[in-house]
Amino acid sequence: MSELEFFWGSGSQPAWSVMLALELKGVPYTSRLLSFSAGDLKTPEFLAMNPRHKVPVIRDGEYVLNESMAILVYLDRKYPKAPLFGQSAEEAGLVWRAIFEFQNHLHPALNVDVVRPIYQGKVEENRAAIEAQMQVVHSELRQYEATLARQPWLAGAEISAADLVVFPHFMSLLRAATRPAAASLKLGILPVERAYPHIAAWQKRVEALPGYDKTFPPHWR
Amino acid sequence: MSELEFFWGSGSQPAWSVMLALELKGVPYTSRLLSFSAGDLKTPEFLAMNPRHKVPVIRDGEYVLNESMAILVYLDRKYPKAPLFGQSAEEAGLVWRAIFEFQNHLHPALNVDVVRPIYQGKVEENRAAIEAQMQVVHSELRQYEATLARQPWLAGAEISAADLVVFPHFMSLLRAATRPAAASLKLGILPVERAYPHIAAWQKRVEALPGYDKTFPPHWR
Repeated sequence: MSELEFFWGSGSQPAWSVMLALELKGVPYTSRLLSFSAGDLKTPEFLAMNPRHKVPVIRDGEYVLNESMAILVYLDRKYPKAPLFGQSAEEAGLVWRAIFEFQNHLHPALNVDVVRPIYQGKVEENRAAIEAQMQVVHSELRQYEATLARQPWLAGAEISAADLVVFPHFMSLLRAATRPAAASLKLGILPVERAYPHIAAWQKRVEALPGYDKTFPPHWR
Repeated sequence: MSELEFFWGSGSQPAWSVMLALELKGVPYTSRLLSFSAGDLKTPEFLAMNPRHKVPVIRDGEYVLNESMAILVYLDRKYPKAPLFGQSAEEAGLVWRAIFEFQNHLHPALNVDVVRPIYQGKVEENRAAIEAQMQVVHSELRQYEATLARQPWLAGAEISAADLVVFPHFMSLLRAATRPAAASLKLGILPVERAYPHIAAWQKRVEALPGYDKTFPPHWR
């Protein structure tokens, strides 16, 4: 039987979440690193797997799946060791709540309204929106800080899919904050150890996971 | 042991999804219908359950949970009869893919850009955006139509959480289309039987589910 193939792109946060899961669970996989700029997501072969031309995608024998959260669920059902969605109904509910509260509140503010304009060098024309949305980001980060003050992981005593989903976005925020384009913004994020010490300790815990180095976006180095 | 309490609001699509699951699974529950306009979601008691003052929320003994998708997972783990997230890893992946493709593509276009301005009577100032986003809505609905031409439910041969998540939003679109404010828009949705016959048949299948009538938004009657 051939290995599961994992199609990803450097710096894609959803792909990073899946790769962290593959490494954490010790799933054997073949890495297929695609280049956005070379058009690898628009080839007929890739479009046949995901007409929406997005990564991540996995191919496991005949089974092809896109959408990172769906892939995490699939991997968790197929490789239950190191469960990512809790052991009980109650734990599963808390993991999914953390994921959807992230998707509905922190993600739009952080990703769309703050990180994207900084990466695109469009700070000046978006300064007011960035500063307004940073208030939302800080409000959510303060809740993470409180959560991580009383437990090591976002949804409880064990690492879960919630940590794997949030982590790459948090790292994108840190990276954006160090960009020259962000110099004139008072983001209030760095140094993380001072702004959010418990989140900084959580970041270190993720970075200590087995296989973490392999998941770090190659073009960020 | 006391019954599970279900806190909801009339016309909340996420609450409707959960209520469909409660009825479908035959879970005994106590209905707590809250009024948005009376401020029921801002009372100290409700804020203690969900500081984000949103429905749905469930309280099952000491366990309190918000976020509709998290509640669906919890209910499915606790009451596995009529499984909503597939029986195998492969099926689970397909259900979650359908849910996240809805969340990432149809939901923003349909809910935020089309239904909301119609309900708010703000058609004129948003006409261009509504018409542009209706192209996205139709593109997604055509994919549903193709899917439902070859299988009875959105994620396969059995009803799943994907159907329960999408259905209330589809019903909101139909309702918006009949509003006087929408009369001047060429939405291309009605009659559904003609625009999307397989989606119309799917709608009928959902409406034939046990307990469906109880879930219909009271203020829509």
